[in-house]
Amino acid sequence: MNSFNVNFPDPFITTETINPYSEGILNDLSFAIKDNIDIKNQTTGYGSPGWVETHDKPVVNAICLEQLLCEGGIFKGKTKSDELAYSLVGVNSFYGTPINPKAPDRIPGGSSSGSASAVASGLVDFAIGTDTGGSVRVPASNCGVWGCRPSHGAISVAGVLPLAPSFDTVGILSQNGQILEKVMHVLLAEGYSKSSAVPSVCFVDDVFQISDEAIVQATRTIKKKITCNFKNQTLKLSEITALSVNFNELFLQLGFLLSTEIWNTFGSWVKTKKPKLSSGVEFSLSNYAESASRNDIQKILSTKKLFQNNLNKFLYAGNVLCFPTTVDLAPRLEEITPDFLAGEYVPRAMCVNAISCLSCAPQITVPIAEANGVPVGLSFIAGYGQDMMLIDFCNKIFNQCVGDL
Amino acid sequence: MNSFNVNFPDPFITTETINPYSEGILNDLSFAIKDNIDIKNQTTGYGSPGWVETHDKPVVNAICLEQLLCEGGIFKGKTKSDELAYSLVGVNSFYGTPINPKAPDRIPGGSSSGSASAVASGLVDFAIGTDTGGSVRVPASNCGVWGCRPSHGAISVAGVLPLAPSFDTVGILSQNGQILEKVMHVLLAEGYSKSSAVPSVCFVDDVFQISDEAIVQATRTIKKKITCNFKNQTLKLSEITALSVNFNELFLQLGFLLSTEIWNTFGSWVKTKKPKLSSGVEFSLSNYAESASRNDIQKILSTKKLFQNNLNKFLYAGNVLCFPTTVDLAPRLEEITPDFLAGEYVPRAMCVNAISCLSCAPQITVPIAEANGVPVGLSFIAGYGQDMMLIDFCNKIFNQCVGDL
Repeated sequence: MNSFNVNFPDPFITTETINPYSEGILNDLSFAIKDNIDIKNQTTGYGSPGWVETHDKPVVNAICLEQLLCEGGIFKGKTKSDELAYSLVGVNSFYGTPINPKAPDRIPGGSSSGSASAVASGLVDFAIGTDTGGSVRVPASNCGVWGCRPSHGAISVAGVLPLAPSFDTVGILSQNGQILEKVMHVLLAEGYSKSSAVPSVCFVDDVFQISDEAIVQATRTIKKKITCNFKNQTLKLSEITALSVNFNELFLQLGFLLSTEIWNTFGSWVKTKKPKLSSGVEFSLSNYAESASRNDIQKILSTKKLFQNNLNKFLYAGNVLCFPTTVDLAPRLEEITPDFLAGEYVPRAMCVNAISCLSCAPQITVPIAEANGVPVGLSFIAGYGQDMMLIDFCNKIFNQCVGDL
Repeated sequence: MNSFNVNFPDPFITTETINPYSEGILNDLSFAIKDNIDIKNQTTGYGSPGWVETHDKPVVNAICLEQLLCEGGIFKGKTKSDELAYSLVGVNSFYGTPINPKAPDRIPGGSSSGSASAVASGLVDFAIGTDTGGSVRVPASNCGVWGCRPSHGAISVAGVLPLAPSFDTVGILSQNGQILEKVMHVLLAEGYSKSSAVPSVCFVDDVFQISDEAIVQATRTIKKKITCNFKNQTLKLSEITALSVNFNELFLQLGFLLSTEIWNTFGSWVKTKKPKLSSGVEFSLSNYAESASRNDIQKILSTKKLFQNNLNKFLYAGNVLCFPTTVDLAPRLEEITPDFLAGEYVPRAMCVNAISCLSCAPQITVPIAEANGVPVGLSFIAGYGQDMMLIDFCNKIFNQCVGDL
């Protein structure tokens, strides 16, 4: 591990070494976990002083932490999270914003901000985050590291604080694809992919269409290499799913479903305990979560299920989706204002995040380039349950199309 | 609805009519929900006075309740649960044991005891329960009603109290297969099955082998009818999964994984709040949940994933498993003693429940017969995600093989 100490905003909220229970697949690899995952006898802070004040310490580690310790992983500490994991930007007004070491004037992204920062800084080999609406993929892409949102339900969330259970996943951020493959092997408790069938790459036209020109430029070389080396096609989401979906609708659907479930998670706590919250989270809870019209739930769930079934049918036919993980470069730190957060950045990010959120399918973001010195990630999505095939395929893509760039 | 009032132990913990938000698929159907599912402004009791004392009222309904109200369902009340949903028998020392109306001297089964009792008594058309380790299937079978444990993750658990998240599901108990199909259509937010392909029935030999003779006898006629009307075969689980599984191992695996996650859910609460608990639940928490050796998690999760993948592969090849839902008739009320609960009844039930728990696959129990006046349920399991096909198939089976018995 390339560990160093410089004077930058700390990605850790606490540090403490826990040695593994036994040797295993993760021997000699160090890791950190996000501050919404239980460690025995430490308060799980959820990036929120109000949460800390109103919750007891867990008496036992989260299942995912136990799995890593069973296989030789060396625990190094707990990383900062956005407040209640309810943001994509990585700015926490109580605990500070972890540095984006690859682009120090830019936000790290969130809510697994500290996990992305710790990995990108070389402080740990990999880190565990959570991804409900993009909270692993966005910071991984912003900080130029690998990131995986697994199939929903594939990794135990026991001992992980809930946000919106239908979308909550335990995700992984790592230095490289080999480490990511090992960690997925452990956490998914599943064998390495032995399939020799190589899927066809489907570039999702809609995402490229709305991407910032700098991102389109940055992905051009690898896209060309993929085109030369792999079966491929370019389709719109409406062609892929045989549904008249547009991105704005995907954003609205995901936003609505997240909002309703988030209010199930936090409503009673907010109203009864009146915890200390930042004005930003207070605004989101009251204007999105509490306000979502719950009479619309059934209609939107039906739309989601259709999207999920049709997209997975396409993926099971031997396809993997490919598109830029984020359609905008990581914004500059000074851009993050209430006005900015009420603007187009979050909806543009969420409509892309929605593809795997709504389909329960696994997504991996691979750091493939830089644009103006800012990392750019390219994402791949396989069918629900095909996580190990997906990481194997991403490693193939990286070795053949990026390694020699 | 066939509603009546007689003097028996009440399956309800509270009654209150909530009218639907709008008309829909469930028009004129009444339902109840289990006391671990949130209703706005009512304490969610979890069958536990200690829980009630230490938790605030939810400010919003669970997602599944909203879905039913969106589609015309008429809410009638909240049904009794076993304490913390941590039992299969249906006996609650604080709130009493709901009657098994089909066999009043027998236990209703649990933990969705009140839901099963309310449906079997004709007080509601259907009821919502939860099934983590068998808590819908066992009481449905004992009380002679239909019961469905859906694919894990297929129905939102937002607003439902967690027990062991990797296994928690929202399940359904209903008067008949038509109602069950409608409710699944709503809660899964998925279309009715249009597939014309009829799966092959695979009788699971291991379950029939260990079943009580009265149950084997009771299933003989329908088994013969299925054999005449449908493609079928009889296989052992080891042949189905190509793994050397035996039932005792399945029970131990499921028991272990449930125990570890249950301690993640309740550990901090038990140790910090020292809530009022029955001696039975206190014993289980301390001797199973707290004591499970967490260094073994990874090994057992790997075994589970292999079982899950291999079983689903078999099911996706066009097979549906079939076996008695419980291998013992519902025990008599007076049999339920600490000694009985420490004996063979629970392990025998759990090893059969484990098939769908460990594979995440949907299971439906169909009331098909009686033995000595006690209901007997026959279960069917389809592949993960094939819930709507499964209920369609169960209705076909019932119409062709049971309806005219």
